[in-house]
Amino acid sequence: MIKPITRSDFESFWPSFSRVIQARETYAFEPDMTLEQAYRLWCEQPLKTFVHMENGEVLGSYYIKPNAAGPGSHVCNCGYMVSEPARGKGVARALCEHSQRQAVALGFKAMQFNSVVSANEVAVRLWQKLGFEIVGRVPGAYRHALLGYVDTFVMYKWLDADGG
Amino acid sequence: MIKPITRSDFESFWPSFSRVIQARETYAFEPDMTLEQAYRLWCEQPLKTFVHMENGEVLGSYYIKPNAAGPGSHVCNCGYMVSEPARGKGVARALCEHSQRQAVALGFKAMQFNSVVSANEVAVRLWQKLGFEIVGRVPGAYRHALLGYVDTFVMYKWLDADGG
Repeated sequence: MIKPITRSDFESFWPSFSRVIQARETYAFEPDMTLEQAYRLWCEQPLKTFVHMENGEVLGSYYIKPNAAGPGSHVCNCGYMVSEPARGKGVARALCEHSQRQAVALGFKAMQFNSVVSANEVAVRLWQKLGFEIVGRVPGAYRHALLGYVDTFVMYKWLDADGG
Repeated sequence: MIKPITRSDFESFWPSFSRVIQARETYAFEPDMTLEQAYRLWCEQPLKTFVHMENGEVLGSYYIKPNAAGPGSHVCNCGYMVSEPARGKGVARALCEHSQRQAVALGFKAMQFNSVVSANEVAVRLWQKLGFEIVGRVPGAYRHALLGYVDTFVMYKWLDADGG
């Protein structure tokens, strides 16, 4: 159900991905990026990228990569995206749990989200349920399409050895 | 005194740069990176990079770049480095003040430091004096060469229109 992404998986996910970034409500990505640019950012630059499939359809995806180099390389960073019609079905939770096990398997000690949009309350609550703490609040760091400047959260979890 | 960096400026700064990252006390950079990798990271990937010169010698340098894309692109990120013998002479302060004016001139609204090592008290105090607030504290996010895991700070300043 969750497996490494292929180029064709990403291409079939691209319409969902593009709608999400164009909405400018959750991701600090260039809203008008091309499929090629998105593929590089989401699938090539990270360490690994996975998809959540159901009946041959991509419901969501996440990447994992080091959040910093050298003395900061024990902390990883992940980004998650779920297609609009697949929301509310536990896909984000499944992806995040999978990513924590991957992180431990890859030798990371902690996971950091650098920019969780404060207005994205569903996401904030989910990450909190999964053990992440708000360790920072950055005033006005996100220009939300509907709300204007909103705060972003830095969220962080020191990982258990079993990835739980 | 502060001017855009050239390749040869960076080459003459490289021994200082290399010593700083090898110390693993302040930067989350790969401590064993090559001059080429450092040049790409410090001088090519950012939007702009400057040097502080005195009598033909490079005392310090900083880069400025967007901290995120799209809806996060009004926040910039800077990194500053001062050579060991030039410490305590106000070089970091001059670089940071210059960078704030640059940021405003480039259209940025705010400046964010993502990973200020908490043990680097001189830097933390200086950024505070220059108007930056600690908006986040990330537990154990930096593996310090002498102290082991230490916290990092997220520091942030909404810029005045005059870059002050």
